[in-house]
This record gives sequence, structure tokens and C-alpha cells, in this order.
Amino acid sequence: MTPVAVPSRNAAADRPPERAVQAAVLELTAEFGNLVTLAASTREQHANTATWIPNQPPDAVVFPQSTADVQKIVRICARHKVPIVPFGTGTSLEGQVNAPLGGVSIDTRDMNKVLAVHAEDLDCVVQPGVTRKQLNEYLRDQGLFFPLDPGADAALGGMAATRCSGTNAVRYGTMKDVTLALEVVLANGEIMRTAQRAKKSAAGYDLTRLMIGSEGTLGIITELTLRLHGIPEAISGGICPFPTVEAACNAVIETIQIGIPVARIELLDTLQVQAVNAYSKLTLPETPMLLVEFHGTEASVAEQSTRFGEIVAEHGGGPFEWATRAEDRTRLWQARHDGYWAACALRRKTQALASDVCVPISRLAECVTATQKDIADSNLVAPIVGHVGDGNFHLCLLVDLDDHDEVVRAKALLERLVERALAMDGTCTGEHGIGQGKMKYLEAELGRPALAAMAAIKAALDPDNLLNPGKIVPPL
Amino acid sequence: MTPVAVPSRNAAADRPPERAVQAAVLELTAEFGNLVTLAASTREQHANTATWIPNQPPDAVVFPQSTADVQKIVRICARHKVPIVPFGTGTSLEGQVNAPLGGVSIDTRDMNKVLAVHAEDLDCVVQPGVTRKQLNEYLRDQGLFFPLDPGADAALGGMAATRCSGTNAVRYGTMKDVTLALEVVLANGEIMRTAQRAKKSAAGYDLTRLMIGSEGTLGIITELTLRLHGIPEAISGGICPFPTVEAACNAVIETIQIGIPVARIELLDTLQVQAVNAYSKLTLPETPMLLVEFHGTEASVAEQSTRFGEIVAEHGGGPFEWATRAEDRTRLWQARHDGYWAACALRRKTQALASDVCVPISRLAECVTATQKDIADSNLVAPIVGHVGDGNFHLCLLVDLDDHDEVVRAKALLERLVERALAMDGTCTGEHGIGQGKMKYLEAELGRPALAAMAAIKAALDPDNLLNPGKIVPPL
Repeated sequence: MTPVAVPSRNAAADRPPERAVQAAVLELTAEFGNLVTLAASTREQHANTATWIPNQPPDAVVFPQSTADVQKIVRICARHKVPIVPFGTGTSLEGQVNAPLGGVSIDTRDMNKVLAVHAEDLDCVVQPGVTRKQLNEYLRDQGLFFPLDPGADAALGGMAATRCSGTNAVRYGTMKDVTLALEVVLANGEIMRTAQRAKKSAAGYDLTRLMIGSEGTLGIITELTLRLHGIPEAISGGICPFPTVEAACNAVIETIQIGIPVARIELLDTLQVQAVNAYSKLTLPETPMLLVEFHGTEASVAEQSTRFGEIVAEHGGGPFEWATRAEDRTRLWQARHDGYWAACALRRKTQALASDVCVPISRLAECVTATQKDIADSNLVAPIVGHVGDGNFHLCLLVDLDDHDEVVRAKALLERLVERALAMDGTCTGEHGIGQGKMKYLEAELGRPALAAMAAIKAALDPDNLLNPGKIVPPL
Repeated sequence: MTPVAVPSRNAAADRPPERAVQAAVLELTAEFGNLVTLAASTREQHANTATWIPNQPPDAVVFPQSTADVQKIVRICARHKVPIVPFGTGTSLEGQVNAPLGGVSIDTRDMNKVLAVHAEDLDCVVQPGVTRKQLNEYLRDQGLFFPLDPGADAALGGMAATRCSGTNAVRYGTMKDVTLALEVVLANGEIMRTAQRAKKSAAGYDLTRLMIGSEGTLGIITELTLRLHGIPEAISGGICPFPTVEAACNAVIETIQIGIPVARIELLDTLQVQAVNAYSKLTLPETPMLLVEFHGTEASVAEQSTRFGEIVAEHGGGPFEWATRAEDRTRLWQARHDGYWAACALRRKTQALASDVCVPISRLAECVTATQKDIADSNLVAPIVGHVGDGNFHLCLLVDLDDHDEVVRAKALLERLVERALAMDGTCTGEHGIGQGKMKYLEAELGRPALAAMAAIKAALDPDNLLNPGKIVPPL
């Protein structure tokens, strides 16, 4: 295994002294008893397990039961200057939960209560350990749903921390759009509310949005107020094959441009379709393909579908195949969500590396096509899926880590993927976040002044660099 | 005239020494010639003119032609530690453009170019002095439009700085939702880009949203990348009278809850309807009223209207009166936008004070009704209009400033308005911002930790407190 170099200061020098860690753990154990664990296996599970970034376990894992518990943990750690790494379900992909300087992982697993549902206001208040599926189970009887769907059954605290989006962000927005307010424990142990429950506000700096996407480096999210939607009266969707990726992308551009409020519009390249067929035992036509879903009234969904069908035909796609029954739709989207596992199954004994970029939609076809050519030229295996309505796509690189030459080619490919996206006015990550894995790209994307501003904000809110250190932005 | 007390440190002590101001003005004049003005009338026009907050003019006004000019101005001012106040069109309502410590007003009037329109991506890049009407004129031929509409023909830089929303935010979001990226000149004179042009990104802290709503206290916006929409195929709308404000609000709640994607839904109370009739020479029925507008395809607009009509009937409203012709619609919305002037005309020789709060929609009827009662009990005149789909409403208080007792009652009413909104989990301002006028409410709304976080961010990005000092949050 050849780990990717993680940019960091001298880790050994930045680690707290061993006696500080021991003192903090002693205090934590006195306070929380067996809700503190030092077991190696648990600690390793609480570090990065999703990619080839090395696993860097914390020194201890604590399971708070309440905001007051989180506050106590932060105060104990702060007193001993021991790092703190917030943990949801550990499904982040860029090493966000690693503990490069050791310290304490705060696992919000037990803070999993839905605290309030305000059906009239279409919002709810939840603890950070509630997962998106759990929330939707809870809401179903009230005819409401929470739209964000990153595939994994992630915890909502983690979804906010990484500015998650997923398949239906094209219609419902990302976590920045669906979060009304947060409660956050700051590095100094104070409990901050970022906003009231009103649907909009112009009262001061947007602390809600500052926390969303800060990956636990500015505070620990202990409560979220989230916007909800009524379950649509009608849902329809299906699959639509295209002769080329370009034709599919052009159909997407036109769909968005004429304002069809498509709820999901996902691209699978041929290799990904083959992977899905094999893994999920489907018989989809093995060509580039769009999976789409429309939400609305019966009439509106019918109209959206008809218009989309016309656009598809203009671009040489089709036939559009409907999944009219709910169970067929569920099966199809389950297959889409299993895309990662399907991709992994294409090449056993390899490490799957999921990377994502996002470009203006006008550049999408060009970016995907150039990336496919690069993959072929590099003699690598990497199916592509994308939330293409947003110009966002993923590459699932399957790398044999014992093959040094292949690892070198894979790393070079990922560098070029980001370079290509940035050159097209895109971003190095549409939804996975920066974590450790993409720190090196941030300056190329935003420039030195933005990085300096981020570092200044980090230093202002966490002067001792205790909150999830070694992520997003190097210290000042 | 009895001015409202503006919370501030000892203003005399915080003002830069006169010789520093003179030195800065000398350098500015050497650099910018007659694009610098010291005329009293111009300086006064560049301070607050919209409310009863006292006019606090800057020492000079400069008209930069480019980002490089803004950078030069900031560097000159920073060298002499002279305050900087960004200025768009001066339509802000809470004293945002006042210069309590003097300094230099940067008027972006001449930075009024549309730099790029990317029709395929539904976005554009504009300079901050472009106004929303100017942008929509520019876009019309391409079938595109920029949806935000605060009534005033505000400059887009100022709209971003105050996190503007307006009549169709209920469908299209606020400035935080429609802004993809900003270019900002920071207090140190560096030019920062906050994001690339991709539709979404998870790359680092959300500097775009941090700048939006910061009212020029963290940086000066010199370029905006904004999301656009296709002009809807069909637009319909009209007016709908209701027996009570409560019935109207309940119709709104149900409309939002069942997911009708209404583009605008505005409440006018009886007094406001009377004012509009008198001012705009209309003959609207003088009862509480909703003005609505639907956007979409012909079929979708028809369906939305039908469903809305059913809801209205259930709540005892109606008859719904359509403005089918574009010119009737324009006339109606012009009347709505002239609501402020119409209100002013209700009582000549008074000062109009527009204040806004926003509450969860379930509390809207209660909040508006209690406010109406309070107005009557206080023997004051204050028509109410509201962007009620968002739970946001405005009160236009007409005060005779020569009547001391009336001024006292008016101030007390405004305090209670905010208290009432906060007690309902609302905000002291849905869209006007904090400026000077609402600084005193921020701690009650968000608590000490949020205020301290804002002050820490301010100190981190503007350590000398030069950018629009005396607004939003007191220095650390």
C-alpha cells in the first residue's frame, strides 16, 4: 500500500505531549465511564477507512449523549490542548475523520433524536447523529421528506459538516440550502446558535453557512434545524440510453436550461452501466445512460416527462424506459446508490478511490469525455457517474495498490482531473469536501487571499488549532 | 427630529485624526482627480437618507472605475487608517451607508458593466454597480432573467452585501442562493475570489456566503457571479381579498405546504390597500389581500392557479381576480413596489420608517395580528405588507418627528415588534439587515457566543476596523 502524502506540518512536533493525552483521557473516563473507549479496533474504525489515505486513528473515542456532554468533552480537551475530531458515520471520502495529530474522536452516534417536527413550517430539529434514512422513516407518516441523498446513510451532522449534496441536489439544493440553523459547540466550549427558525434572515454574518462545509474545523454541530418538503403527489422516472456521453450531457444542459424542474438526473458511463448490471443483476442497455426522476403533481410530472422525452429524442437518445412502479424505481435507485460497490466489484483486490469534481454545465461533456480518454490512455479502470444536472461527476478509480506503476499513473490522473476541472472554471470537489485529500488543490482553485482568509477565520475561532486539525486549510 | 440612539463606542475617540483623513484625501485626489468629491451635498447623499437614523456623511466620496481602483483606494485608506464605506444605490434602510467615524465612501456607480453572460450555464458575471433592472434589460433578448426583486432598483453589489431578498424570494431564494461567486477587495487590499463558477462546491469555508450579508464590513464586493433563470413560458397572477389577515395567512401556509411553487405571494393589510388605491389610482377592494404570481409552463401555471383558487375558497377568500394581461400585471406590481411611497402619502410631513421581521410561517398570522393590535393601541399609523410565503413582513411606520410623545410610542412599538418576532423563533430582520439600526437586537436574537464569533471574524479579516465600522457587530 502506497499512501498518498498528506500535507501537514511536522506531525510529531504538533502532536500533544503523551501526558496531556493521558490526562485528558483520564478526565474523560472519570466523567463518561464506558462511553470512552481506547480499543484499537474502535479507534481505527473512527479514522479514514474509505480511501487510500492512511488510517490515522484517534487516541480515544467518546460517545456523548447530549450537547452538554459535547461541551464537557471539548472543555476537557481544550484544557489539555488535545485535538478533537467530530465523527458521524465515517462515510466521508477525503480523510475528514482522520486524527493526524491523535486526540479524541467525538462520535455523535447516540445523539440520534428527532427533537421536533414543525409540519406547518416544513422544518424539523434533529440531533447530529440522526441519519437521513432514519429521519425519512420518522417523517413518512406526516407526508414529509428530507430530500438530500448522498447515497450513504450518512448522519445529518456530518452531512452539514461536509456540505453534502447528492442525487437530488439539482432540485432541492445542498446542505447549505436546506439548513436553517445550527447549534454548535465552539473550541472554547461555548454553545452557539447560528440562527433562529425563520425561513430567512439578514441578521449579521451567515454563521450557519460558515459552519456548513467547515468539516468540524470551526465547531462541532450538536443540533440542526432542517427544511423539509411534502412528499410529492406523483413521482415518475426511468432510464434513457444515449449514443455518447456528449449527447447525454447536451440533453441535460437543455433540460436544465428550459427549466424542467427535474428532481434527479444522473449520468452513468458505459463501464458504470456494465458494473451495475453485473452487481445488481439488471439488464440495462450498456451505453451511456441518464437516470431521471420527476416530482410534482400528476399533471406536472406527465408534462415534465413528455418534454424531457422530446429533448432526449432531439439528442439521439432513447427510448426512454419508464419505471412506473415504485418498486422498480426503488430497485433502480438502489442500483445507482450501489454504484460504488458495483464499481469495486469490477476489479477485485483493488482499492476504490472515489473523487469528484464539478464544472459549469456547458463544459461537462468536454470534461467527462476528456477524462474518459485520459483513463483509457493511462490504462486505468475508472467508471464515471455524475449528478450532471449540477455539472458534478465522480470517478471511481480502481487501483491495484501493489502495482507501483499503476499507483503512479492513478495519482497523475487525479491531478489532471482536478487541473482540467479548474481550467474549466470548476471546483476540485463538488460535494466530497477537502479533508486531507484535496488540501493541495485549494490554493490553485481559490488563490492565496482566500486561503489566507480561511486560515484567519480558523485562527480566530480555534486559536489553538484543536478542532479537526490538519483538514481544509493549513494553520496561519 | 429625535434620532434613534446608535450603539457605538465613543465616536469622537474612534475617528481617525483629521490630518490622517486629509492625507488620505490628498493621495486619493492625486490618484483619481475629479472622481473624488468633497462636496457636502454629495457626501450627505452618500450617508443614510432612508430612515430616521441620523445622516452621518463620509469625509469624501470616490468613484472607482475598476477593481484595481477599489484596491488602490483601500490601500490608501488602510495606510492612513481611515474608514471605508462601500456604497451601491443608497437604498438600504438601517443606516448601512452611514459613516459614523467619517472616512471615504466608495461609490461603485461607474462599475456598471455586465462582464459575461453564460446562457448555457444560466449564470452571468457583473460589476457591483449594475442594478437589477439594468441586468434584466440586458438579459431580456436572451430569454433570461435575474429573479431577485427588492422593489428598489438596487445595485447588485449592495444587494449581495445586505443579503437582499424581496418579492419572489419565496420561489427563487435570496442573494445567498443566487450568488455563485464573488470577487472582494479585503481590508489589506488583496483581491479575493470566493469560488469558481461551478454550480456547487465543497471546497473549503463558504466565503461567498460569509461575504453575503456582511454589509461591507468584511470586504468590498467588486464582481459577482449570479445564477439566472429562463424567462417563464407563462406568468399569471392577480389579487385575492380575504375577510381577515389570519385567513390570508392560513391560505399562504397551505399553499406553501402542499408545494405550489408560487413565484410571489404578498400580503397587504387593509390600510396598505387603501394607501395603494389612493396613490396608484386603483380600485382594489379595501380588505386584507394577497397578490400572487405563478411562473411555469401554460399547463403548470393553470394548475397552480386552480389549486390556489381552491385553497383561497376554503379560507373564505376571493373572488380571485386575474390580471391576465402583462400590462395589468405590471401595473399591479408597480403599485405593490410603490407601496412605500403610497404609505408615506397616507400622512404627509411624517418620516416613514420601514422595519421588517420574519417568523416561522405558522406564527405569521398571530404575529401580524398582534402587531396590528399594537399599532392601534399605540395610536400610530403603520400599514403592513409582507413577503408572506417566507414569513417576512414589513411595517411602514409614519411618525411625526415633531411630536415627542408619538416618537416615544413609535420606538416602543418597534422594540415590541422585534421582541414578538424573537419570541416566535423569528429574526429581527428578514431582509433589511442589521446596519446601525438593529445592532441592539442581535445579541437577544443569537446570543453572546454568536456575537463573539462575528466579532472574532471581523477582527481576523479587518484588524483595524476600517471596513464600514459601526455596523452589525461592535468590535471585540
